[in-house]
Amino acid sequence: VSVGIGDDCAVLDVSQRPRVWTIDSAVENVHFRRESMSLSSIGYRSFMAAASDIAAMGARATAALSSLVLPSHLTDAELDELVLGIARAAHACACPVVGGNLARGIELSLTTTVLGEPYHVALLRSGARAGDGLFVTGTLGGAALGLSALLKGAESPALEPFRQAFLAPRARLDLAERLASVATSAIDLSDGLVQDAGHVARASGVSLRIELERLPQLPKLAEAAHLLSEDPLCCILSGGEDYEILFTAPLASQTAVWATQIGTVEQGSPAVTVHDTQGRVLTPKGLGYDHFR
Amino acid sequence: VSVGIGDDCAVLDVSQRPRVWTIDSAVENVHFRRESMSLSSIGYRSFMAAASDIAAMGARATAALSSLVLPSHLTDAELDELVLGIARAAHACACPVVGGNLARGIELSLTTTVLGEPYHVALLRSGARAGDGLFVTGTLGGAALGLSALLKGAESPALEPFRQAFLAPRARLDLAERLASVATSAIDLSDGLVQDAGHVARASGVSLRIELERLPQLPKLAEAAHLLSEDPLCCILSGGEDYEILFTAPLASQTAVWATQIGTVEQGSPAVTVHDTQGRVLTPKGLGYDHFR
Repeated sequence: VSVGIGDDCAVLDVSQRPRVWTIDSAVENVHFRRESMSLSSIGYRSFMAAASDIAAMGARATAALSSLVLPSHLTDAELDELVLGIARAAHACACPVVGGNLARGIELSLTTTVLGEPYHVALLRSGARAGDGLFVTGTLGGAALGLSALLKGAESPALEPFRQAFLAPRARLDLAERLASVATSAIDLSDGLVQDAGHVARASGVSLRIELERLPQLPKLAEAAHLLSEDPLCCILSGGEDYEILFTAPLASQTAVWATQIGTVEQGSPAVTVHDTQGRVLTPKGLGYDHFR
Repeated sequence: VSVGIGDDCAVLDVSQRPRVWTIDSAVENVHFRRESMSLSSIGYRSFMAAASDIAAMGARATAALSSLVLPSHLTDAELDELVLGIARAAHACACPVVGGNLARGIELSLTTTVLGEPYHVALLRSGARAGDGLFVTGTLGGAALGLSALLKGAESPALEPFRQAFLAPRARLDLAERLASVATSAIDLSDGLVQDAGHVARASGVSLRIELERLPQLPKLAEAAHLLSEDPLCCILSGGEDYEILFTAPLASQTAVWATQIGTVEQGSPAVTVHDTQGRVLTPKGLGYDHFR
């Protein structure tokens, strides 16, 4: 990037070929609450949520712009903390923040736009084909339990890995190149497994079959869920903001080291079904959540 | 643009080479008030403010993303009106909106990010050289008077051109190619002439001398200012949101048809001075305004 903050626009280097592009906003009392996490975590998470969209396209993150709406009661020290969190995330993503905008407002909001360069073709939600396997990176449901712990003010060493899953997620840019080499479709897990799988099923015109016993989870998730009086299954199937990648790929793909096969892509009208070990279909009762409804 | 709204990211066409990039937010009760203008105008103006940054780089606008924070009391019909205004501006700029984001919030805010392709090199604020002329496109102060008319609810046919200057500004993308062929530096006029000239003076390390009698204005600006009890000079020198372009270029440049020379670039420590016909320097008393202070 040849020109950064301080002109009308940021100027990208001529050698860069950005082709994928996202924007994402995090709004106080909708996407986060000041009382349950630090401003540094708020900044960090808002950046990661946007960068995660780039990873899901099978791309590297090129550069970002950040637009902050700041309430007048926010002090300079608090703004520094917010910016530090953004900078930490940008550093972890090797994605410089090259410009932005500050504005006053009643409620704190952070909007991040990120450009990326696909390793191969851009991975869409619409490429899943019957016969593919359905895969996921990392583990599921950790962030939802972590959020529950934060909102309930629950303190226990057993909850710490879950708090971290929520407070310090990593956009899976580290896997984007491998993803690009095998995947037929991909989406990042921001709304929850079943809901995000639904987006892929609809975009691709396929049915996705998920095997419950294959779903990867952090160690001792059931115990942590019990401590918090949460339904572990609901966290795994519908918990949002893990920022892992759900993708489809040919069954023979070499993914064992960095992803878990959790099901298969089948012909049929767009649907997502979850099956237990006896092959019974689970009834989703209000699975998934949506900030916008 | 090969993929639009509905995936994790927008995907740009391989033939596009975006190199300049901006983000801009418009926040309710800071940048606009619902009671003084329609939602269509709010959408239109927020898009134009962002596109104007692209024009000031001597670039064409490639594509945009739009992130809207919507209060729950906003109806679907009102959202449609807002989006219509954005679409109108995007059409006028030949710049498709290829994606975006919707989120809930207390206050309405619109964040627009635009990518652009410079016609030649990207025009920075830092390129002004002593000996250049100082130029401006269009006219000055019209939008400030229009805003005054709207806030005061003043109705008069004499005020209509000013109301239009505020409600329906045009990002000067129509002049961006010509600008790119002559200018040594450029900035769009969002904060007001003197304040924006100050940004160029500081970035370039030069002194800018503005000749008061050369400043272009809409016909009958003085009469309109009188109707509204506004200081016409203050509108011209400090009125924001005209979205015209202030630029520097060699004095011999062919700009007469599409711009007005309003002064010169001189050696000296960064400063902006305004001179009357007798060569006396005007004292700026709180000239310029800044949303963020």
